[in-house]
Amino acid sequence: MTDSSSAYDLMYSLPPIGGNPSTHPQQTNPGSFANPPRIAPGVEGALTFSSPDTPGMPGVSENTAWDFMPEGWELKAGYENNYETAEAWIPPSDFLPVTQLEFARCGTITPEMERVAEREPHLTAEQIRDEVASGRMIIPANKVHLGYQLDPMAIGRASKTKVNANMGASPVSSGTEEEIEKLEWATRWGADTVMDLSTGGDIDGCRQAIIQNSTVPIGTVPIYSMIIARRLEDLDHASILQMLKHQAKQGVDYFTIHAGVLQEHLSLVTQRLIGIVSRGGSLLAKWMLHNQSQNPMYELWDEICEIMREYDVSFSIGDGLRPGGLADGSDRAQLAELCVLGELTERAWKNGVQVMIEGPGHISFDQIEFNMKVQRKLCHGAPFYVLGPLVTDIFPGYDHITSCIGATAAGYHGASMLCYVTPKEHLGLPKKDDVKQGCIAYKIAAHAADVALGIPGTRNRDDDLTEARAALNWEKHFELSFDPDTARALHDEDLDVDTDFCAMCGHDWCSVRISKEIQEFMSGKSEDYAWDKAKKTLPLTAEQQEILEKRGVLSPDQIHKLASKVKQEMTGDQDKASCHSDYVAPEEAQEMQTSKQLPVLNQKL
Amino acid sequence: MTDSSSAYDLMYSLPPIGGNPSTHPQQTNPGSFANPPRIAPGVEGALTFSSPDTPGMPGVSENTAWDFMPEGWELKAGYENNYETAEAWIPPSDFLPVTQLEFARCGTITPEMERVAEREPHLTAEQIRDEVASGRMIIPANKVHLGYQLDPMAIGRASKTKVNANMGASPVSSGTEEEIEKLEWATRWGADTVMDLSTGGDIDGCRQAIIQNSTVPIGTVPIYSMIIARRLEDLDHASILQMLKHQAKQGVDYFTIHAGVLQEHLSLVTQRLIGIVSRGGSLLAKWMLHNQSQNPMYELWDEICEIMREYDVSFSIGDGLRPGGLADGSDRAQLAELCVLGELTERAWKNGVQVMIEGPGHISFDQIEFNMKVQRKLCHGAPFYVLGPLVTDIFPGYDHITSCIGATAAGYHGASMLCYVTPKEHLGLPKKDDVKQGCIAYKIAAHAADVALGIPGTRNRDDDLTEARAALNWEKHFELSFDPDTARALHDEDLDVDTDFCAMCGHDWCSVRISKEIQEFMSGKSEDYAWDKAKKTLPLTAEQQEILEKRGVLSPDQIHKLASKVKQEMTGDQDKASCHSDYVAPEEAQEMQTSKQLPVLNQKL
Repeated sequence: MTDSSSAYDLMYSLPPIGGNPSTHPQQTNPGSFANPPRIAPGVEGALTFSSPDTPGMPGVSENTAWDFMPEGWELKAGYENNYETAEAWIPPSDFLPVTQLEFARCGTITPEMERVAEREPHLTAEQIRDEVASGRMIIPANKVHLGYQLDPMAIGRASKTKVNANMGASPVSSGTEEEIEKLEWATRWGADTVMDLSTGGDIDGCRQAIIQNSTVPIGTVPIYSMIIARRLEDLDHASILQMLKHQAKQGVDYFTIHAGVLQEHLSLVTQRLIGIVSRGGSLLAKWMLHNQSQNPMYELWDEICEIMREYDVSFSIGDGLRPGGLADGSDRAQLAELCVLGELTERAWKNGVQVMIEGPGHISFDQIEFNMKVQRKLCHGAPFYVLGPLVTDIFPGYDHITSCIGATAAGYHGASMLCYVTPKEHLGLPKKDDVKQGCIAYKIAAHAADVALGIPGTRNRDDDLTEARAALNWEKHFELSFDPDTARALHDEDLDVDTDFCAMCGHDWCSVRISKEIQEFMSGKSEDYAWDKAKKTLPLTAEQQEILEKRGVLSPDQIHKLASKVKQEMTGDQDKASCHSDYVAPEEAQEMQTSKQLPVLNQKL
Repeated sequence: MTDSSSAYDLMYSLPPIGGNPSTHPQQTNPGSFANPPRIAPGVEGALTFSSPDTPGMPGVSENTAWDFMPEGWELKAGYENNYETAEAWIPPSDFLPVTQLEFARCGTITPEMERVAEREPHLTAEQIRDEVASGRMIIPANKVHLGYQLDPMAIGRASKTKVNANMGASPVSSGTEEEIEKLEWATRWGADTVMDLSTGGDIDGCRQAIIQNSTVPIGTVPIYSMIIARRLEDLDHASILQMLKHQAKQGVDYFTIHAGVLQEHLSLVTQRLIGIVSRGGSLLAKWMLHNQSQNPMYELWDEICEIMREYDVSFSIGDGLRPGGLADGSDRAQLAELCVLGELTERAWKNGVQVMIEGPGHISFDQIEFNMKVQRKLCHGAPFYVLGPLVTDIFPGYDHITSCIGATAAGYHGASMLCYVTPKEHLGLPKKDDVKQGCIAYKIAAHAADVALGIPGTRNRDDDLTEARAALNWEKHFELSFDPDTARALHDEDLDVDTDFCAMCGHDWCSVRISKEIQEFMSGKSEDYAWDKAKKTLPLTAEQQEILEKRGVLSPDQIHKLASKVKQEMTGDQDKASCHSDYVAPEEAQEMQTSKQLPVLNQKL
């Protein structure tokens, strides 16, 4: 409750980044290009301009979770200017820490913090404790889930950028077993957390099974379960708290709760092109209008905190008013809700509960830095968990790409976790390959952001792959790839032998091969990657065959040929792939490309 | 030749953005995360730090092409401080303008400038002329190609961001007819220019046919043709000029010439992880080492300019030392070459030739803004034509994504044209679908950058699509999509009727439908998009069937069902798709989803 009124001041005195007229600007004056006028939110009629170089971005908040201590904690004398440490505080005499935040406030390093330090080798357990205490990092780890197989992880600006994948049964699809299969698939492709957004089937049993089987934190949006077999309008305070308690007890690690969308915001939405696109947000808006009452999640906030504290469930405070199109990006509705999210963050910290904040879905590329910074200002550095954002609206079918562009910039400018978007976004329920494509696009975004941020060690694998590439060591190249099967399959599609060029440029035109010829440029110096002769490669695995089948470039016969080109090894010996030594002479390899036997190079495009 | 020595000063006194140690930083001190030391290029031993907020980026050059006028042009008295206009200058008495740059310097608006103004409605023909005169924009339009079917377009910071697609026959693949087919395919998916990088087949006849058939500018890398049937080492000045003259006469619109990589740079390359990855760069390096002579392209620069001026061929000055991995990004070799590119730009302008500059291939996300700005500084605002850059190295098979992230940031921070990268980059020769995927990823990048830059009108289609989405008007939604067939196919895969929800959330959980229910949020207000009843959709077209077949989610039977669900229209009447009116009741549509007849929703992930 402290200085969130100043948040509004910030919002309306901001430099003119973001904000959009609600109708298309007319192109009546082509001469205005150099400085196209834009209307800042809340500054009707003011003509302002945002450029890449606009100065005056909001600064980081001066506060941390140490500024929002619970009632009863006493600051020791002499620590007034140095209170951001456990030493400075005396907890109430009967205080027993429960949440990771509370342990951190007491100066305790928990086993979960130790484990996170193992998984984030650039950070010590002490640093992790201090980041958790400051509110800039969370360890979403429900005590119940810790009793099963949860492997603790952290979400925060100082740790590596994380990726979330959404899954969940729909009213007509899939049972518990299939959801477990989805969970394994998503984590195989790198999901660091998974949200179970089920809206149908045996929701309760399914959630239970997911939690018991998951090594990654599980998030839910509890309002979905609250309105199963109940009219939305009939939802009441008692049933809300009951469902939250039930899911907390089951072991859910974080709850998305859309408590920031308030009655007074609803009029701001009417100017939008696409209203409310958050499911939770639209449901609560409908409830508020029908019941002529304030958002019950907001009203119940402190009671909700109490339930969550008991099991150490973390908040993922939902952005019910996130923009659903570029036209609505950074508008008054979105920013007004964000101010409330800041207030809710402060109140959660006062209750000892860990918090992250959800962020916008569609905003143009120029507004991303601003969005990340204003969130860090208003929410005092609580981890930001963003959906995309999509940086254009006109590419349905490719929104894993439109959004991972935004996610990379978001990660670089301050987001801590990126919620994936699949190619099926806006179109239908994602299928297995969509989940994979979404995960990979987001692993790219998270990794690119970490490299850009200079987190120590994150670029090592890139550099190792570059060395293998320089040495034209294809086997190493693919081993170091994020998706080795796809890389190998695409390579072998053209050329089923590993030699000192690839089919893209061919022998005579390979710059890397030419560089190697020039002794002074000797690349691939590392002996680990050196090799001399062209190698026969293993036949395609079943997985690689499937990749090529789906591409549809080669005929079944051609794929079969690649799959049986040498004696198929069926021993299941994983080491085979990296130790075989069927060499072919370089001349032979070159001949293979220039002879007309290669199936693809001659193919009509 | 003017102030490029100060360019070196700039380079070595730069704020500590970019530059990478040549070996992996060891993670010995986890506490150093907050300020990971990096070594700036050329400042051995200096510990410096780059963060997103590092101030002190290089400013824009104070010079333009008006500062590099040819010999013999006379500045009128009184115009010393106002010389950036045709009025200020008296050309030599016998001067006849040939290139677009020269016409612009004379104050003339050419028919090509008029045409560009039609295609870029936010700019007037006068503005285009002035941008061309300043060197910040080029119109690559060989006079010979204008005699065929070339539709003039512009590349520059003030115009919309452009996309280039590479194609070309390899030593073993494809003939002229197939290359023409590739050309049509690339332009269908949005390529604004095409580079013919052929290294085999009937190179000359193929180039001729491409030029005659192309409505978009064609670029080449002439050194490739120069060394066909000749040992690289034997290449001499006469044969270089001969081939350039020949291709200019054929009608090539721009030449990539790697004149910036000099003998003195070669020692800088030895510290790299992956040496030289530019084909032209590696060939010229090999030539220089063998002949112990300076780069012949550099030596011949003014003579080359003379040939290019005669036909108005534009330069795309190649970056022979572009980094081939993150580890080599923004290193001394790259920046040293860039300084020479600035000098070559000045000399080209003095010769009346239009210039763009090629840029880096692999640099981390944090270094993109720096790279764009240092180029604008050193090359005085000449248009920057970038390849990617890739922002991570470990995702071969997905490099259309890793690179379109970098391309978006590059476009936003100053690049004018983006050279596409396909999923096959580093692995093999791109196939038809790879070309499409590469084009689409780059159309996303270019469009997202244009929207972010606020170019008037560029967001209109996004907003129209958002309105259609808000109105749940699927037909409009897909018509406004960049790839309507894919969007429609993915939608129909789950639900072959258009109704007021999609299979992602289903009826009860559709936020947009709920928003529409709430009168106050009435989205999709525009009457253009309004519709009331669920609609039966047309059967899948052959193209849409193929998309679903390749996804491999549905069985052939299921796809057949979607393709024949209503009487197949074989009239070829394109209007059918948007005017049919087979309505189904909303209840029936809802029933369709909840009944078990839908093929996919029940499918195991």
